[in-house]
Amino acid sequence: MITLHGFPASNYYNIVKHALLYKDVPFEEHLIFTGNDQLLAVSPVGKVPAITTEDGVTLSESSVICDFLEEAYPDTPLYPESATKRAMVRQIMKIAELYFELPSRRLIPYVFSGVDAPDAIKKEVRQVIKRGIPALNRLCQFSPWIAGETFTMADIYMHYVNVVVINCASTQLDWDILAEIPGMKQWNETMSQSDIAQKIEADRRANMPEFKTHIKALVQAAQSK
Amino acid sequence: MITLHGFPASNYYNIVKHALLYKDVPFEEHLIFTGNDQLLAVSPVGKVPAITTEDGVTLSESSVICDFLEEAYPDTPLYPESATKRAMVRQIMKIAELYFELPSRRLIPYVFSGVDAPDAIKKEVRQVIKRGIPALNRLCQFSPWIAGETFTMADIYMHYVNVVVINCASTQLDWDILAEIPGMKQWNETMSQSDIAQKIEADRRANMPEFKTHIKALVQAAQSK
Repeated sequence: MITLHGFPASNYYNIVKHALLYKDVPFEEHLIFTGNDQLLAVSPVGKVPAITTEDGVTLSESSVICDFLEEAYPDTPLYPESATKRAMVRQIMKIAELYFELPSRRLIPYVFSGVDAPDAIKKEVRQVIKRGIPALNRLCQFSPWIAGETFTMADIYMHYVNVVVINCASTQLDWDILAEIPGMKQWNETMSQSDIAQKIEADRRANMPEFKTHIKALVQAAQSK
Repeated sequence: MITLHGFPASNYYNIVKHALLYKDVPFEEHLIFTGNDQLLAVSPVGKVPAITTEDGVTLSESSVICDFLEEAYPDTPLYPESATKRAMVRQIMKIAELYFELPSRRLIPYVFSGVDAPDAIKKEVRQVIKRGIPALNRLCQFSPWIAGETFTMADIYMHYVNVVVINCASTQLDWDILAEIPGMKQWNETMSQSDIAQKIEADRRANMPEFKTHIKALVQAAQSK
């Protein structure tokens, strides 16, 4: 059985968890936070999520794991059959990662500590996200799914990217980013209503107190150095 | 026939070009620099490279194009057959991108302008690359290829990532990064000796004067605003 390493408060963790649940691939969850040396045994950069495959190989990086799950468990596909359409799906995921998720992620430490981010960082983050908005406007279909008629990995990916984008942008940038992409909010709401998304959201909320305690301990350890 | 949009001085462009040449897929090159509005017609974020496929679809993002080329032109494969081994190849590529190429890329404006980067940026870049080094030490095989016995897309990807890493690290960080990964330098030298790499290097050098003129014009336009 696959082991999914990480913690339910992580949006990257939830991308992989959603794909596993959607594909009905049996897995067990191994709760482990970042900063734990045990994580380095399964993820060479020490990041969440990682998986241990059925044949005992460890893999990290959400996009790598998403592709692996599709290739190893092709039933209930999450990518279209045509190579071109698969590439269109991956292009949406990549632009969501580079221009929505990674810039927003830079604000997370400020969100958690309740401190206003420096203006220079806010400006950089805004600039990167502003490149992503017209690109996603062009690529996203919402008809009804993000890449067209079929539900794909890009739907899962973007939904959990949006968790971070909404949180960071509303608290740090005073910016309703999803409103800049017509159709995105309604699609995101539809996504959040699926049974799988609801289970993942419940697990995320349940994990938050322990995650926050963990973050506080990390900050205290860093300060006492 | 595939059209490859971009310019030969770009290392991302050369990743895709090397894969096309290796797979012997017919293509034509369309010389276009960043900052040109025409690029937005083929790349939603206005980045190099992009391709127009044989059926007229435009695709951007090197990693997306690499996967597309493999799926659309499976002869002369650049990924292993096993899903797990494919994932191992993609994991190397992803870590090379996030922990070697993207941090090094932040130094490029300083390399081109011949100005020393601010210490704060150098520190951040060093921190990110220092996370990548032990990860790549663990994942790279060099036996003789980067992911083991078979030449893969990860060999192509890492070789052109190294072009940027070597250039930025030697001029801005006074740091011989490749020396931190035993086997990397010798493998990189072997990579650079292939006929395809030699052709790409010749094209890169030939394109550099025009590319530098283009960059100067961009800087002047930005300063006159």
